[in-house]
Amino acid sequence: MDAHTIDAADVSPSPPGEEAPWLTAREQQLWRAHLEVSRLLDYQLGRELQPHNLAINDYEILVVLSEAPERRMRMTDLATATLQSKSRLSHQITRMETAGLVLRQECPGDRRGLYAHLTEQGWETMQKVAPDHVRSVRAHFIDRFTPEQLDAMYEALAPVAEHLRGLRGRA
Amino acid sequence: MDAHTIDAADVSPSPPGEEAPWLTAREQQLWRAHLEVSRLLDYQLGRELQPHNLAINDYEILVVLSEAPERRMRMTDLATATLQSKSRLSHQITRMETAGLVLRQECPGDRRGLYAHLTEQGWETMQKVAPDHVRSVRAHFIDRFTPEQLDAMYEALAPVAEHLRGLRGRA
Repeated sequence: MDAHTIDAADVSPSPPGEEAPWLTAREQQLWRAHLEVSRLLDYQLGRELQPHNLAINDYEILVVLSEAPERRMRMTDLATATLQSKSRLSHQITRMETAGLVLRQECPGDRRGLYAHLTEQGWETMQKVAPDHVRSVRAHFIDRFTPEQLDAMYEALAPVAEHLRGLRGRA
Repeated sequence: MDAHTIDAADVSPSPPGEEAPWLTAREQQLWRAHLEVSRLLDYQLGRELQPHNLAINDYEILVVLSEAPERRMRMTDLATATLQSKSRLSHQITRMETAGLVLRQECPGDRRGLYAHLTEQGWETMQKVAPDHVRSVRAHFIDRFTPEQLDAMYEALAPVAEHLRGLRGRA
């Protein structure tokens, strides 16, 4: 097979026995398609954010903060919301702080840690970038489905998302 | 909305005009479900690899190398195959080399750079871990779809994967 294909299932050692049946050919096809779309789409959306000097993770931070009350979040909550480790988030926020997009501040009267605030520049950046980003999301994902496919995919994926959110909540 | 929801589209500034129509409610629902499943699934699969002392990226490297001729790849090709920067891959390979899973070597007579080789221990590790990983993939993704949903999703996603592979090829 093409060694450049991203795949984490088609490893083809001997079958693992009755407990965990190996993926069928069709199941492997779907699993591979999902992984490829997931990773290549992140990659492509990231590339199309480059002219704005934003990484895809930066954009996500801007969005999450913009939706938070007072456009700020505790660093620990922001790490949870973006599924990042605290140390990795800290590095990212430092870069974004240098770019003037966010501000890290202690909250007066709250000793439970640092907050990341969206700056006015961060808010304006997000509003400027959002139309281009939506254009990318349409071009490389949404507009490639028929209305029927859109419905079918949502109905299939929504319960999986709910299942995974529940697992994370118990972590 | 729930600030913990991962979302990169529902930013709700004023609509960007005629060129890039904003996502409809249903389109946003699908986009959000896709992002959530994509990220939370990576996270969950990673958690279930932890007892094996492997990160999800480590497992992917093992799979890609195991499928390469002679179970080795040039570092630059491995970076392309796994969509990682060369510097990040280099750090990862260093960790995996310390764990005995891969070996970095110059190829005699080939001056075009370093190769990463899968070691015998790396191969055995992958074979040992694969059944558990497949069990995770089934439990949190594949087995959550009806056969009809599986077919519908594959038919919807396969052309998108092809489109995105083509874009990357031109990068």
